[in-house]
Amino acid sequence: MSATGEITPLQNRHNLLDKALDQSGLQGLALNAGPSLIYLTGLHFHLSERPTVFLFSPGKKILAVLPELEAGKLSDLAFEVEGYTYNDNPESWPKAYRRAAQAAGLDGRRIGVEPRRMRLLELDFLREAAPQAAYVTAEACLASLRMHKDQTEVAAMRRAVQIAQTALRETLPQIRAGMTERELAAELTLHLLRNGSEPELPFFPIVASGPNSANPHAFPTERALAQGDLLILDWGAAYQGYASDLTRTFAIGEPEDELARVAQIVAEANGAARAKAGPGIQAGEVDRAARAVIEKAGYGQYFIHRTGHGLGLESHEDPYIRGDNQQRLEQGMTFTIEPGIYLPGRGGVRVEDDFLITADSGESLSDLPRELILLDV
Amino acid sequence: MSATGEITPLQNRHNLLDKALDQSGLQGLALNAGPSLIYLTGLHFHLSERPTVFLFSPGKKILAVLPELEAGKLSDLAFEVEGYTYNDNPESWPKAYRRAAQAAGLDGRRIGVEPRRMRLLELDFLREAAPQAAYVTAEACLASLRMHKDQTEVAAMRRAVQIAQTALRETLPQIRAGMTERELAAELTLHLLRNGSEPELPFFPIVASGPNSANPHAFPTERALAQGDLLILDWGAAYQGYASDLTRTFAIGEPEDELARVAQIVAEANGAARAKAGPGIQAGEVDRAARAVIEKAGYGQYFIHRTGHGLGLESHEDPYIRGDNQQRLEQGMTFTIEPGIYLPGRGGVRVEDDFLITADSGESLSDLPRELILLDV
Repeated sequence: MSATGEITPLQNRHNLLDKALDQSGLQGLALNAGPSLIYLTGLHFHLSERPTVFLFSPGKKILAVLPELEAGKLSDLAFEVEGYTYNDNPESWPKAYRRAAQAAGLDGRRIGVEPRRMRLLELDFLREAAPQAAYVTAEACLASLRMHKDQTEVAAMRRAVQIAQTALRETLPQIRAGMTERELAAELTLHLLRNGSEPELPFFPIVASGPNSANPHAFPTERALAQGDLLILDWGAAYQGYASDLTRTFAIGEPEDELARVAQIVAEANGAARAKAGPGIQAGEVDRAARAVIEKAGYGQYFIHRTGHGLGLESHEDPYIRGDNQQRLEQGMTFTIEPGIYLPGRGGVRVEDDFLITADSGESLSDLPRELILLDV
Repeated sequence: MSATGEITPLQNRHNLLDKALDQSGLQGLALNAGPSLIYLTGLHFHLSERPTVFLFSPGKKILAVLPELEAGKLSDLAFEVEGYTYNDNPESWPKAYRRAAQAAGLDGRRIGVEPRRMRLLELDFLREAAPQAAYVTAEACLASLRMHKDQTEVAAMRRAVQIAQTALRETLPQIRAGMTERELAAELTLHLLRNGSEPELPFFPIVASGPNSANPHAFPTERALAQGDLLILDWGAAYQGYASDLTRTFAIGEPEDELARVAQIVAEANGAARAKAGPGIQAGEVDRAARAVIEKAGYGQYFIHRTGHGLGLESHEDPYIRGDNQQRLEQGMTFTIEPGIYLPGRGGVRVEDDFLITADSGESLSDLPRELILLDV
C-alpha cells in the first residue's frame, strides 16, 4: 500500500497475479528481463550476458537475482524486493541463484516461465538451483493480465498513436524519388523522436519500395525509390513503454492498374475487420472478415499472414487476430488490424490500424487515410 | 563459391565454422535470430513469437525452419539454404521442425546452441523434433570465430565510432541546465541518425545526471540537469550492423572537488588499460591495469564493474575484460575500455573507448578528450 493506504497500480497487478497463478496451478513465477517484468515492477533490465531473474510467489515478498551493479534499481520502489546479488565473476552466480531459490521455496514446485523470453542462460541457473521444480509456461496466465489494458495503458497507447501519425505527416513532404529506403527510415525515425517517442522505438521503421514491398517483413535497404513503385511504411512510436504500430501504402507516381485495385481491396478488408471487431466477437471472426474480402476479390493466396496481433508493452502480444483463435475480444484489449496483399516481384499493399475494444463496440486509435496515397515526387 | 570461383566472405565463415564445430566436438549448430545468424548468413529476423531456427551441419546444406512469410529472405542468397516453412497456425510448426531435424540428422547428435540467445520457445520444438539430440553450448565455438574481426568488420566499426563522435560534438552545444535526461537522449539519438547510424541503434543512449550518474546502467529519466551535476553520456552508433559504444563524463558548472579528482583518476585508469592492451596480453591484465590505478587512489570499492567487454555485431560480446579472464588478446579483437567510479547518492564518472588489437600493439578507435569536460550552461 502507498503511504495514503491506497493500493497502487503495481500492487493491484501483484494481487491479480497471485490469483492468476493460483488459477493456472502455478506456485511461482520466474521472469527475466522484458515486458512482463516491466508490467509487474516497472523495472527495465538489458537482456545481457548476466542472468537476471525475479521470483514471484503468492503471498510472499518478491525476490530478485541480479548483478551488484544493478542493485540500485531495487531501492526507491513502492513495494519490497529482496535482492540476491552477484559480482562479475560467473563463479559467484550459482550461489546467488541457490540462495534465492531456497528463500522462494522453488524446489518441487510448478514455476511459470515465459518460453518466448526465458533463455537457456537463466533457465540453467534456475534448474541447477532448484532441480526438482517444474518450469512450465505461464504465457496464458500473464496474457490474461496484460491483455486487459487499464485507463493509464490506453492513454499511453493513444499518445503513441498520435506521435506516430504526426511523425508520418511531417515525413511525407520529404519523400523524393531517388531517396533510399534507409534514408527515408532515418527521416521517419527523426520525426518520431522529435514528436515525443521514447528513444527505444518498438521496432525500427519498415520502408519497403517496389518489389521489396512484396515482402511483409522487409528491412530498409539501399534501394532508391522510383516512379511506379508501391511504397509501404510500417512504423510506430513508444510512449511510457507502450507501442503504436501503423502501416500505410503509397504510390510513387501513377501505379499499375492492378496494384491500384489491390490497394482498394486491402482498404476494404481493413474496414470489414474494423466493422466486425467488438466485445464478445472471437479474434478469428475478425481475421475472417478481412480475409473474406480479399478472397472474394481473388487474391486470397496473396494474403500470407494473419490479420493482426495484440499491441501494448510489446509490439506483438496477445490477442492474435488469426482465423483459428477463439479468444473472445473484451473491453480494454488492443490489437492491430493489418490485412495485406503481396504480389511477388511486383509489390505489396498493407493498411494497419491500432484498435481498442470498448464496452459496447470498438475504436480505431489511428485515423490516417487508408486509401492508396499518390506521392507526386 | 561466387560466379567468379572466389570464396565469398560468408562461405569462408561457413568453412571456419565447420572446423570450429569439429574442434568443439559438435556435429551441428542450431541458431535462432540474432548476431551469430547475421554473422553466418547476413540474414536478419525478429525474435518474434514465431520460432525460426537455422541448422548448420559440417559438409551439409544449411537448413532453415521459418514462417512462410519470411521465406522470401532465402532467395537471392550467395549460398544455398533449404527452407522448411510453416503457416500462422502453431499446429503446423512441429511438423516443419520434425522434417528439418530429420533432413539434418539431428537426433542422437551433439548440437550447439547459444544459451544467451536460444529461448525455451525454439528449444522445445527442437527437443520434440529430435529428442535424442544433446543441446549444448556453442558459445566458445562461435566466439572463437566472431572475436577475430576481418578488415571489413574493422572498417565498419571505425565508421560506427566516427559517427558516434560526430554526433556527440553536434549534441554538446545543445545541452542546457533544465533540460531533462530524456530530452538529451533524444537529441543525441537524432544526431546519431543524421550522421549515418543505422536506425536500429546498438542501445539507446544512457544519459545519467547528478545522483543518477552513480548507477552504471541508468536509463534516461525526467530529471532535469542542474548546476553541480556530473553528467555521464554513454552512446553508440550502428554501421553495417557493427556497434560503437563510448562514454564521456561532463560537469554542469563547477563540480565538487572530490568529484573532479575522481574524474582524473578514472581518466588515468583508462589510459593505463589502453597502455597495457596488446597482442599476447591476457584480458585480465588489462582489467587489473585499470583497477590498480583506482585502488591505489582509494576508490577500489566504487569501481563496481569489469573494465570492458568485446564489441562487434553485439554491444556486449567476447572478449570480456575482467580480472579472471585469461583469454589472450589477439590481432583483430575489439573491445571497450571503460573504468568508472560511482559514489552512491553523489555521482559517477566513466570514460569508455573502443579499442582494437593490432599486429604488434593496440589502437583506440575513439579519440574524444577523456578529461572531465566542463559545460558552462
